[in-house]
Amino acid sequence: MTKKTYNEINEFMLGHMLDSAHDKYHVYRVLNYAVDIASYENVDDMDVLIAACLLHDIGREQQFANPKLCHAQVGGEMAYDFLLSIEWTTSKAQHVKECILSHRYRGDNAPHSIEAKILSDADRLDVSGAIGIARTLTYEGQTGEPLYILDDNENIIDEAGYTKENSFFQEYNYKLKNVYDKFYTEHGRKLGLDRQKTAIGFYEGLFAEINTNNINGMTKHDSLFTE
Amino acid sequence: MTKKTYNEINEFMLGHMLDSAHDKYHVYRVLNYAVDIASYENVDDMDVLIAACLLHDIGREQQFANPKLCHAQVGGEMAYDFLLSIEWTTSKAQHVKECILSHRYRGDNAPHSIEAKILSDADRLDVSGAIGIARTLTYEGQTGEPLYILDDNENIIDEAGYTKENSFFQEYNYKLKNVYDKFYTEHGRKLGLDRQKTAIGFYEGLFAEINTNNINGMTKHDSLFTE
Repeated sequence: MTKKTYNEINEFMLGHMLDSAHDKYHVYRVLNYAVDIASYENVDDMDVLIAACLLHDIGREQQFANPKLCHAQVGGEMAYDFLLSIEWTTSKAQHVKECILSHRYRGDNAPHSIEAKILSDADRLDVSGAIGIARTLTYEGQTGEPLYILDDNENIIDEAGYTKENSFFQEYNYKLKNVYDKFYTEHGRKLGLDRQKTAIGFYEGLFAEINTNNINGMTKHDSLFTE
Repeated sequence: MTKKTYNEINEFMLGHMLDSAHDKYHVYRVLNYAVDIASYENVDDMDVLIAACLLHDIGREQQFANPKLCHAQVGGEMAYDFLLSIEWTTSKAQHVKECILSHRYRGDNAPHSIEAKILSDADRLDVSGAIGIARTLTYEGQTGEPLYILDDNENIIDEAGYTKENSFFQEYNYKLKNVYDKFYTEHGRKLGLDRQKTAIGFYEGLFAEINTNNINGMTKHDSLFTE
């Protein structure tokens, strides 16, 4: 890839990054994880990998405005159209689109090419470790989701998945905890596992802190009330 | 305090809690830390302490709308007026107001009474440990502040205080790191220190993860570019 092409794609990406959990720094971290992982793999087309990393989250803006949209699908289409507009071949633009389509953690599209697998792993690295926790908490703040929800017995709901609302504890158990099993490359998995201990230490510490003190107001202090 | 009075104050508080870093769960955690610490101290007026805990952040709403306002000052006035309206004496309402005025970490008003000191410590416990980290990250997401900012040499700015914007790393070094020295009661300090290790482990893990990968795009990968 020429520096000129890189700068064009970079400019296009910068025009579409909105939220602080998926900002340009996330994109650059993913790009750098990917370049690192690529050095351990036989990559056919570094241009495709670099473009796919830069453009993988450009559809977030539209998904944020309309949660029924999937940012991987929207972003894949946007990337395809943009790359054709800067004279890429349909076959390279299509390959970038397929990488973006298959990178989503919640999606059903598994990555096939090595470029697509590396993008998936690089994006997952940014969900692992302390950075994964930090980004998730930032995102919950942005969308107004709570840290935890208590059930009727005043225990923290710490199971995967959604109830009436989503909380950090539910998201951790649905996604962050399980990301370490989901790497496609050896080097990606190694980098992920290096960070797992920090994430577990934080989660367990947080749970213990809140669980000793998780009550709704004064329900455990009835003795303090007078008649 | 009667249950009826508690419920009246609680209802008033619930009408003024907005953001997810300072929601009703934060208020209830502070109340419960305070009740715990109070059991180790000679507290003159538990009514004042309970009311001060419940009402300490009701001024956040106005500070959020206008950052020049101080939520401790605004909230102290609101609490005073409200307590008079439910027939509290001016002296008890004034004491609650003083507790709220002096609880703010960034403020210049040191707490004098034991009730004010306990409120300060209880509020600081919610800034310590994993919960302090989680709440700060949530708040940064809500206000759109970034996780980190790079200086001109592409190093993370990890000093206390503000530059052009504030980041999580700056806030950690300004406030979260230093809260452990700021407790007024023995039991408050002990509870804080029990949590310090989790917070440090997370911060150091996050710093290491980002610092190995903190670059702006491809500036370290010039060799990948073609002519």
